[in-house]
Amino acid sequence: MKLYSYFRSSAAYRARIALNLKQIPYEYIPIHLVKDGGQQNSAAYRKINPSGHVPALDHDGFLVTETVAICAYLDAIKPENLLFPKDARGLATVMRLCEIINSGIQPLQNLKVTNALEKDFGHSKDDSTRWVRRWVEDGFKALENTLTGVSGKYSYGDTVTAADAFLVPQCFSARRFGVVVENFPLIAKIEANATQLESFKKAHPEQQPDFA
Amino acid sequence: MKLYSYFRSSAAYRARIALNLKQIPYEYIPIHLVKDGGQQNSAAYRKINPSGHVPALDHDGFLVTETVAICAYLDAIKPENLLFPKDARGLATVMRLCEIINSGIQPLQNLKVTNALEKDFGHSKDDSTRWVRRWVEDGFKALENTLTGVSGKYSYGDTVTAADAFLVPQCFSARRFGVVVENFPLIAKIEANATQLESFKKAHPEQQPDFA
Repeated sequence: MKLYSYFRSSAAYRARIALNLKQIPYEYIPIHLVKDGGQQNSAAYRKINPSGHVPALDHDGFLVTETVAICAYLDAIKPENLLFPKDARGLATVMRLCEIINSGIQPLQNLKVTNALEKDFGHSKDDSTRWVRRWVEDGFKALENTLTGVSGKYSYGDTVTAADAFLVPQCFSARRFGVVVENFPLIAKIEANATQLESFKKAHPEQQPDFA
Repeated sequence: MKLYSYFRSSAAYRARIALNLKQIPYEYIPIHLVKDGGQQNSAAYRKINPSGHVPALDHDGFLVTETVAICAYLDAIKPENLLFPKDARGLATVMRLCEIINSGIQPLQNLKVTNALEKDFGHSKDDSTRWVRRWVEDGFKALENTLTGVSGKYSYGDTVTAADAFLVPQCFSARRFGVVVENFPLIAKIEANATQLESFKKAHPEQQPDFA
């Protein structure tokens, strides 16, 4: 199992947590999103992931990209420590929580988008930051309200799931842009609980070989 | 089963296709995204979906939002006509194709985002259109390259899957913004094949009770 990753990418951070939760060892292959005009744009990496995003998982030559797909794949090949519950309602709820982050927040705040806003649409750096904060805060409001009634110690009751593997990296990213995570008490509580776990600690950006 | 929907929303269109493919009848509840300042912003609808997006599925009072979660839920409660293949590689590949659209394209081109660009970030209407086309074309390039080698008559071989339920509405949306879908031959071929099916025809925006 090889993981193409960048230490700071919140999506790659999710995949690292997921692999750790599943207790699946992997080789770390760094893809630097800034150096060399972005190594994700090289022809070689575009063959691995035509979207040019990290992470990408290579399992004996079979490629999986997109973190929701990676989590579902890991559950399918190794049913221990399920990232998505098996029952219909649990599955739907955890996947829903993941998607509020995966499609609702992250795509609007990633490097590709802020780069485009600044380089091709004349935004100032301040405008970009205002843009990112708006969508993160908007999405966190929706996530906080969705967590009410379904969360416990973690996002979905007291069991660690994929939803936590998505929540923690989004909090990390949010803080970088000055979002006050503590304004969202359930999110902040779940983050605090999950980050105490070894699987989350080992996946932290600062613990990665390409951290700089 | 009730579906909160808006005829033109590409995400709601996906859910309608999915429900038709599963042969699950449902009650259509229109949520007008423009009228009354956007009915998705009402306190009543925010209780159903705190994100304020359509679609939302209400199954005997159990709420599911986010179309990937809706598809996974439908497969879990009714295993006939699977939207996601059961085998690990099939599941990963179909989910990956869905996510290239779901998190890679749609979030950047929806009404909420273009509204924000125009109202709060001083974009002209032309800038908004340029913005939408850029991300749709970028995402279609990635999708086209990912389809190479995995597609057949449909996105994943010759079987209709969730990936087709995501591809067709994104093509519909792309055309509205002047993207030439035919520049992406596999996408255009799959769209042409899938739109011949009854499940897709019945889900088309113009066939909905709130079409105007």
